[in-house]
Amino acid sequence: MDSSFAIPSNTTLTSQGSAVSSDAHARAVAAGLPNALDFTHHLTPLAKNRVASSLKDLYKYMTTPGMITMAGGIPSPQYFPYETLSAEYLPTDFLPLDNPRTPVKSKQSLLSWLFGSSTNNQSFTIRKYVENATPSTIQLATSLQYQSATGPPALPLFLREYVQKIYQPAYADWDVLINCGNTDAWGKVVFMLLERGDAILVEEWTYPGAENSYLPLEVENISIKMDGEGVIPEHMEEVLANWDEEKRGKKRPKLFYTVPTGQNPTGATMMGERKKAIYDICCKYDVIICEDEPYYCLYTGAWKPEGLKPNTSVLAQREVEAEKKEGKEGNEAFIRALAPSYLKYDTQGRVIRLDTFSKTSCPGSRLGWFTTSPLFIERLTRATEASTQAPSGFVTAMTTTLLQTWGFEGYIRWLRGIKAVYKMRRNWICDTFDDVFHLEFESSEFGIKRNDAVMDVFGGLGRGVTCYAKQIPGSKEAKWDEKRGLQSARGKPLVSFVPPTAGMFIWLAVHISGHPDYDALVRKGEDATKTLMTALWRDLAENLVLFAPGIGFDAGGEHSIGGAGIGYFRLSYSIATYEETRKAIETFSKVLTNFLKA
Amino acid sequence: MDSSFAIPSNTTLTSQGSAVSSDAHARAVAAGLPNALDFTHHLTPLAKNRVASSLKDLYKYMTTPGMITMAGGIPSPQYFPYETLSAEYLPTDFLPLDNPRTPVKSKQSLLSWLFGSSTNNQSFTIRKYVENATPSTIQLATSLQYQSATGPPALPLFLREYVQKIYQPAYADWDVLINCGNTDAWGKVVFMLLERGDAILVEEWTYPGAENSYLPLEVENISIKMDGEGVIPEHMEEVLANWDEEKRGKKRPKLFYTVPTGQNPTGATMMGERKKAIYDICCKYDVIICEDEPYYCLYTGAWKPEGLKPNTSVLAQREVEAEKKEGKEGNEAFIRALAPSYLKYDTQGRVIRLDTFSKTSCPGSRLGWFTTSPLFIERLTRATEASTQAPSGFVTAMTTTLLQTWGFEGYIRWLRGIKAVYKMRRNWICDTFDDVFHLEFESSEFGIKRNDAVMDVFGGLGRGVTCYAKQIPGSKEAKWDEKRGLQSARGKPLVSFVPPTAGMFIWLAVHISGHPDYDALVRKGEDATKTLMTALWRDLAENLVLFAPGIGFDAGGEHSIGGAGIGYFRLSYSIATYEETRKAIETFSKVLTNFLKA
Repeated sequence: MDSSFAIPSNTTLTSQGSAVSSDAHARAVAAGLPNALDFTHHLTPLAKNRVASSLKDLYKYMTTPGMITMAGGIPSPQYFPYETLSAEYLPTDFLPLDNPRTPVKSKQSLLSWLFGSSTNNQSFTIRKYVENATPSTIQLATSLQYQSATGPPALPLFLREYVQKIYQPAYADWDVLINCGNTDAWGKVVFMLLERGDAILVEEWTYPGAENSYLPLEVENISIKMDGEGVIPEHMEEVLANWDEEKRGKKRPKLFYTVPTGQNPTGATMMGERKKAIYDICCKYDVIICEDEPYYCLYTGAWKPEGLKPNTSVLAQREVEAEKKEGKEGNEAFIRALAPSYLKYDTQGRVIRLDTFSKTSCPGSRLGWFTTSPLFIERLTRATEASTQAPSGFVTAMTTTLLQTWGFEGYIRWLRGIKAVYKMRRNWICDTFDDVFHLEFESSEFGIKRNDAVMDVFGGLGRGVTCYAKQIPGSKEAKWDEKRGLQSARGKPLVSFVPPTAGMFIWLAVHISGHPDYDALVRKGEDATKTLMTALWRDLAENLVLFAPGIGFDAGGEHSIGGAGIGYFRLSYSIATYEETRKAIETFSKVLTNFLKA
Repeated sequence: MDSSFAIPSNTTLTSQGSAVSSDAHARAVAAGLPNALDFTHHLTPLAKNRVASSLKDLYKYMTTPGMITMAGGIPSPQYFPYETLSAEYLPTDFLPLDNPRTPVKSKQSLLSWLFGSSTNNQSFTIRKYVENATPSTIQLATSLQYQSATGPPALPLFLREYVQKIYQPAYADWDVLINCGNTDAWGKVVFMLLERGDAILVEEWTYPGAENSYLPLEVENISIKMDGEGVIPEHMEEVLANWDEEKRGKKRPKLFYTVPTGQNPTGATMMGERKKAIYDICCKYDVIICEDEPYYCLYTGAWKPEGLKPNTSVLAQREVEAEKKEGKEGNEAFIRALAPSYLKYDTQGRVIRLDTFSKTSCPGSRLGWFTTSPLFIERLTRATEASTQAPSGFVTAMTTTLLQTWGFEGYIRWLRGIKAVYKMRRNWICDTFDDVFHLEFESSEFGIKRNDAVMDVFGGLGRGVTCYAKQIPGSKEAKWDEKRGLQSARGKPLVSFVPPTAGMFIWLAVHISGHPDYDALVRKGEDATKTLMTALWRDLAENLVLFAPGIGFDAGGEHSIGGAGIGYFRLSYSIATYEETRKAIETFSKVLTNFLKA
């Protein structure tokens, strides 16, 4: 390996400089936006110690016309074995914006769909050399060569436009830096900000993949209570205000890790008002926020039970209609409907946002990007140079070319199709619960009568649904309209959940205390919830339905979602077909009813 | 992101298990090879603390036929925007095995070569779905999905065959693990084995890109003296034997970082005997060896000045002839000619070998692999899961398909072509030195009269060449045959180097003490070498020749290569054309002669 002399990174920033194109930065300053504050005091010694190459002088000369450079250990592209790379790709409008509630049988057979080539597909070819190439040109001679950690210049160019238009950061000198996906990104943030023995603020139910980066550093989870919209600001304030360094033996946490949209595992989505409240607390206690947003574009809005019309205002209804329109108007309505990013409230540059192509293109990309302050971008660039370097040129070349080919509006149209798919899938699973169980609602939305008697396991936000057994499951008597007339739940509550408004997860609360042996187990001093949930999970797996056990997501501490007698499963509705979804929930209903002797 | 529930890694090894195919492992055991020793005591707390997913039960069920899995946050491949990926690639015999000493003018114009498509190119297409796919099948539905950290199974399968046949490890239960190239790989080794404040054994001149990973951890370089073959075993033994923990305030180094082939920056290549000696010392003092081998296949053998025949034995000559043959016999001769890896002497599993596709395919791949013991493979797999995950599916799909298409013998043929290219380029630059300067040799190889009077700056190995100004530069009088007759150098020695036998670098020792101001600067207490070398480097750059300044490679400590009055440049001959090479060295000669007033 020898890339240290290859190509300098474009983002060797000083506190004065910024890699945001000077135009955009100038406009932001003119619009009265401040620059980021200096958060150097948050950096670990490791992050502080990283140095840029001592050979800056070299770089100055490298682009001199006519220079014969023998400085870098760079192989000649002549000997790269690839002459061209090509892709057949889907058109931006491949996925419809509005899907039928239940799938319509396709005329194509499954096999012809799986193995046949669509005639609608378009294709591009990336050649080794492009005549009159500019720095923005994607050609294999460049993409398959050593690249600076910032990757091909055309990619951050696209991403800066995207960030500006979608997130509208509240400070001027933010920038982007590509990485190898959010797990890689988060690992780099951890080593930049966390020392062994530190504490970190996390959601009470959190993503274990993120914990894998800092728990081995003996960093302690400080879990913040959640409700159906995510973490509760009051609890965060309480934890930070009452932090006793001496008693705890460690400093107050200075980093908050959160998945605000379609949270993993709870599926909760936090909207603007709550984010602003959290942001203000983080400013007060000097906490850096890392928002990990893989599911951001999968913001699908509220589930409405089939056959009901949402009681929305005329203006709201107009927005819903605008979202269905093709073209720029529809694209703008899509952008307006998204939950605001923490960046929108970030006047100080204390937010590190992680975005990824995993859910909007494909997970195998292993490609994502940071959006944050010049200081953090510069330190992360140094860390990138000493670890992954730029992501593979195969993925950056392909992704950049696809984005260039589609264009900004085209990419937004593609995202709208992806959003519509997840909305459809969310409806499939929620509708199936509605068909298989008898549902009682905590809210009075959609004109459904609110049932105050049902157990609230999601922090009293009034968004939950609790499922009961149908009296004659599957019978005609149990049709939806009849159910609405019921004044109280019949029998035991079985499961509760908040119908997700984004992402791909349902966080299913199982009322496991309804099991006949529950009390006896508790009296014996056993962890009855764990014992019974494990048995139920195994029962399900033996019946060919696999959920993720909730226990793996437990960040410790006190729980607001859940508590004694409630166990959890995380259900992903991202991949099962309509038929599989129905079969899985029907099987679950049978296994659960039998298990609880309901 | 959510891959923690996606797909388990294939290499959740225990000390009993091994991911080397049980057949190969059984054969190795039958051949009397031991298993690796337990080096758990070398792991950092961070590395020890890493845990495998607590959800192993889940994995057991994931492959059950008919299972409906809602456990993982996995998007459906239906919504991946790529339908096919294709590549036009070069045939394995594209690069000739034997190149003319000076380039023959091609009939093709440069432009048609650059932009025209060769009719010889072959191509492959990777489809989204392949009928009757097996785990070894490369299809986009799998490659562009979340993958286990170990990547597509077909890739390690190929690499294990390669490792077995090329390196022949001396213990039974070694395995491979893919990574994002050697910088990523080395970063992972650093966090696995080095704690803040540790010391590390390095070559006295070393690769700064590697230092970037551990110097920010405040790990101290302990530099081992080198000669023209690499580090000197006696000095390593001396350093380790006399290590005084109390006096030093730190533990004896337990990790040795080395680039044994075509070393960066010195170009030195270490052969078997020396490696065995180093390995034995590392066993004695319990030191782990990390051999970073990007240039391994660029082992080009000795440079012989033009017009001379090497005085090789009949047997050696037969090997040289065998290497020129196409097919299996030639491939085997190529493999025999390679320097042995440390793995060949590693009976304990204390070697971590880093290989990369950067020089054999293309650097933009960001793809490489570890070869090491089951313990290290397993810990590195856990670290990979918490950082990069598998390398991008775009590069693993392409690389695996290319390797499958070429096959093992085809890939070896490709490597032989690459080797021939670097041999040609090495000859270009050494021949140019021979033409531009008057050369005196430390060795009596090739029947050249050894000159004992020339200054030895490469540790007394007798491999160096010292360059003097020609009396009438470029004149007919100064022809090669005449020069051989000279008994002593004329004028001042200007530069010395060891003609490289591998890699892409010449480590050029400049006799800067020959500068008229040198002594005066020394008397003034200045670092005369640094001052004058910087001025010379800038002079060169102003004349459109860019070398890498040697100072950036200095690992500190005592130097055996170099010393007072000698400064260094690293010259890479990997990318300049023949004409550029000649022009650069001619310019260098003029600038240097003028600078030294020689």
